[in-house]
Amino acid sequence: MTTIKDLSEEMPSFPGRAIKFANFNVTSQVFHVTPHSFALVNLKPLLPGHILVSPLRVVPRLSDLSAAETTDLFLTTTKLQRTLARVYKAEAFNVAVQDGQAAGQSVPHVHVHVIPRKSGDGGEGDKVHEWLEGEEGDVGAHQRQAVERQRAKEEWVKDEDRKPRSKEVMEAEAKWLREEIEKDEKSSAGRL
Amino acid sequence: MTTIKDLSEEMPSFPGRAIKFANFNVTSQVFHVTPHSFALVNLKPLLPGHILVSPLRVVPRLSDLSAAETTDLFLTTTKLQRTLARVYKAEAFNVAVQDGQAAGQSVPHVHVHVIPRKSGDGGEGDKVHEWLEGEEGDVGAHQRQAVERQRAKEEWVKDEDRKPRSKEVMEAEAKWLREEIEKDEKSSAGRL
Repeated sequence: MTTIKDLSEEMPSFPGRAIKFANFNVTSQVFHVTPHSFALVNLKPLLPGHILVSPLRVVPRLSDLSAAETTDLFLTTTKLQRTLARVYKAEAFNVAVQDGQAAGQSVPHVHVHVIPRKSGDGGEGDKVHEWLEGEEGDVGAHQRQAVERQRAKEEWVKDEDRKPRSKEVMEAEAKWLREEIEKDEKSSAGRL
Repeated sequence: MTTIKDLSEEMPSFPGRAIKFANFNVTSQVFHVTPHSFALVNLKPLLPGHILVSPLRVVPRLSDLSAAETTDLFLTTTKLQRTLARVYKAEAFNVAVQDGQAAGQSVPHVHVHVIPRKSGDGGEGDKVHEWLEGEEGDVGAHQRQAVERQRAKEEWVKDEDRKPRSKEVMEAEAKWLREEIEKDEKSSAGRL
C-alpha cells in the first residue's frame, strides 16, 4: 500500500497523477492510492471525515470488479477506517455502496461511502442515509457544480447552507489524512 | 465455497449446524456458508431478497475482522449479489454496514445488508435507508420477537403491516436460494 506522493516511483505505469472518478479529475481530492483503489475527500461531506473509496478502474458496478479489486477496495476501506476513527474520534461508521442507479448511485463509478459517526452527531435515525440518498449526497451533482464554478471562476455562494469546499480546503484535508495514514502505517509496521 | 447442506462433510470442525448471529440461533435462516462467512434471509426483509452476510466469528466491528475474514465477507457478498440479481431481477443493490451502535447497528455482530433494488420498488429517495435505520430495519428486535413468539407458541399477529415471516417461509426461501446459488456455482465452474 502506498500514499499518492510515492505513486510515480512505485507505480510507473500509472497515468501521471490524474485520478478519475467517472469522468471527473479528482486528483486534488485524493489522499490514498493502493494497487487497485484510491480514496478521496468530499466536496460536501455529510459529516466530518466522510470519504469515498473507489477502484482505480472506472467501472459502475461491484459485479464489474475482479476478486483482487473487490478485496483491495474493502481492505482499503477498513484500513482507512482505522485512521479516520483516530483522527475524527469516530465511535462508529456507516459504510455504504449504492450499487447501481436504482439504488441511488449518482456517479457511474463504484464508490464506498465511509461516514464517521459519533453519538449526538445529528445523523441519528434515518438522517445520514436520508442525506446520502437526497440532494446532499449527490456526489455527481457536486462534482459537476465544482467543474462549472471553476470554468466560470465563480465565487462560492456565501449563503448556501452547506457550501461545497474549496480546492484548497480539500487539498489541506487530503494532505493531513495522508500524513495521519503514514503514522498508522509506520506504527503497524513497528508491531510486526 | 460451500452451501450449508455440505457443511458437515466439508467443515467437520464446524460446531454442528448451529449458526449464531450474535446470541441468536439463526440456523434455519442460513442459506450459504463459506470458510469465514454465512448468509441469512431476514425475518422482515425491507424489500424482496433483502439478505444479511456475516462473519462466522461473532464480533461487533469490521475492525475486529482479520484480512482473510474481511476479504471473504465482501467476496461472498458480491458473489451472492450475482444470484440475487438473477432470481429477484434486481437492477441495483444497496450494500450497507452499520459499523457500530452510533451508526445504527442493532445486533453486535458484523452484518452486511444486501438489498436488491429495481426502479419503482418504493425504496426511492431516502426510503430504503430510512427503513434500514428505523424500526423496520431493527434486525435485533425482530430476532428477539421471534424468540419470544416461539417460546409463547404465539400466533402471528394477523393485522400487522409487515408481518415477520414464519420459520417455514424463511426455510423455504433459504432452500430455494441454496439451489439457485448451486446453479450459478456450476455454471461458473463450467466457464473455467
